[in-house]
Amino acid sequence: MQTKINIKSLIKEYKPDFQKQLETLVKGFEETRLNESIKYSILDGGKRLRAILALITAEAVRKSKDKIELPKNPALGLALAVELVHCGSLIHDDLPCMDDDDLRRGKASNHKAFDEATALLAGDFLLCYPIEVLLNKTQDVDSFKLHQVSVEFTRAIRSMIAGQALDLELTGKEIHDIELLKKMQALKTGALLKSSIRLAAIIAEANKEQIEALSFFADNLGLAFQITDDILDVTGSTKDLGKTAGKDLNQNKFTFVKEYGLEQAKLIALKLIEEAKDKILDIGIYPDKLLTVADYVISRNN
Amino acid sequence: MQTKINIKSLIKEYKPDFQKQLETLVKGFEETRLNESIKYSILDGGKRLRAILALITAEAVRKSKDKIELPKNPALGLALAVELVHCGSLIHDDLPCMDDDDLRRGKASNHKAFDEATALLAGDFLLCYPIEVLLNKTQDVDSFKLHQVSVEFTRAIRSMIAGQALDLELTGKEIHDIELLKKMQALKTGALLKSSIRLAAIIAEANKEQIEALSFFADNLGLAFQITDDILDVTGSTKDLGKTAGKDLNQNKFTFVKEYGLEQAKLIALKLIEEAKDKILDIGIYPDKLLTVADYVISRNN
Repeated sequence: MQTKINIKSLIKEYKPDFQKQLETLVKGFEETRLNESIKYSILDGGKRLRAILALITAEAVRKSKDKIELPKNPALGLALAVELVHCGSLIHDDLPCMDDDDLRRGKASNHKAFDEATALLAGDFLLCYPIEVLLNKTQDVDSFKLHQVSVEFTRAIRSMIAGQALDLELTGKEIHDIELLKKMQALKTGALLKSSIRLAAIIAEANKEQIEALSFFADNLGLAFQITDDILDVTGSTKDLGKTAGKDLNQNKFTFVKEYGLEQAKLIALKLIEEAKDKILDIGIYPDKLLTVADYVISRNN
Repeated sequence: MQTKINIKSLIKEYKPDFQKQLETLVKGFEETRLNESIKYSILDGGKRLRAILALITAEAVRKSKDKIELPKNPALGLALAVELVHCGSLIHDDLPCMDDDDLRRGKASNHKAFDEATALLAGDFLLCYPIEVLLNKTQDVDSFKLHQVSVEFTRAIRSMIAGQALDLELTGKEIHDIELLKKMQALKTGALLKSSIRLAAIIAEANKEQIEALSFFADNLGLAFQITDDILDVTGSTKDLGKTAGKDLNQNKFTFVKEYGLEQAKLIALKLIEEAKDKILDIGIYPDKLLTVADYVISRNN
């Protein structure tokens, strides 16, 4: 099935409004060096893919073809939270003791624009503050369900951290254990991306079947996303990516590309996306925007 | 009023049981390098002062002279959470880009025992996981109140982070703004310590007057605790402290000792504790153990 919604117009429809919500969130922050560095990293030009996934999943479950204007989308708190966590993880990933990258989203990474200590604390802030945002900005959800969602969200964050640690452990080693590779990717990239879809579905009161199908969709999407990241690390330019290209290869990271080569890795990602799309077709939601994002995940160039 | 409870017997009564709860919490953790480093830092010999404060505050509000056996103390989840956050903050504080300390609690600091990347991620883990622990391990509290407590707890964590950043900003500068110094200390040390008392009171269903009095007690205790830390940095030995003595002076940190000298700083801490103790005498709680800890905070040698 071919979807007719264009990814560019989709991002154009959602990103600026979401950006305004992010700005509102940090507008009242005191003017300190730490807060400047936090704003530097969260107000820059990310794609906001995780946030958009949260917003359109909630709409899909509510069967709304039209955009639910912010701040009325019930997954807004979640969308803000996942995006903030994502930004925080990137700040720490770029630190010298981690991936040591000077470039992020086409500009100096946080510790280069500020300093290592400030970047460390900015990342720290962006790993705990989002839970507060989720708790405070999630509307029309009873306390009990919000409690469950918050617990699952904190688990996604710690999965991400565990995945990052596993990635470091596997780097440079001659390992060919695909299950381990999948596990690492599911933790490192998958968990947070999955939470943006799965928890949006729960918040929007999806039924059990829908939650399961959307969770499957999210798992596949997350893995395909990471495989595509690994492909782009090889095929993309530093300019397009906004971060240093070729780093995984240089650092001898354990990736699908390293294990299978470029063409095979592309096919694996494509198959994951096809399966993902199939899964959400007949579960009584409005799937079109999610299908568009799924296609984009493997066709993007940054 | 002189309290008769001995601090040593108090710690002996509470610490081993609490330690067991901490161990139970991490027993199921997968055997990874990251988890080893997390266990390394949380299972070592801290005083567990924040945890004990949470537990005895809940007992004080419930007017229980006897220890409420764990896991029945309603503030156990909070006690675990504050202690975990505290451990996480110490890991990051010791990193080379921060205070660069090789010694913590008498042994190699986390990044020395493991490596910087692992220590970074262990600290990250210990800044978000505790919120999950608080949400999951807090019993007999309705979801709505737990929601409020969790929000306030995340705020305490980000206050701590902001305080750390402010501390770095003020270090080495010729500033004599005492209000700014108090603010920095309230953020850096006070907020988390306060949360262990104030939120335990809320969880144990203290009334408004009790919560206010205990919050005042906690504010003073936190500041007196930090002033004593600053004093011990000058007067204590590396062996007693379990961390490098004389660091504040070397780094020209903005402290009460720097501003007022040792003797005056001691008097300020003493006055804070006297006021704190007075405040909780006639509010219908059993205050004795809290009074003992208050005295200890300024008389300790590590």
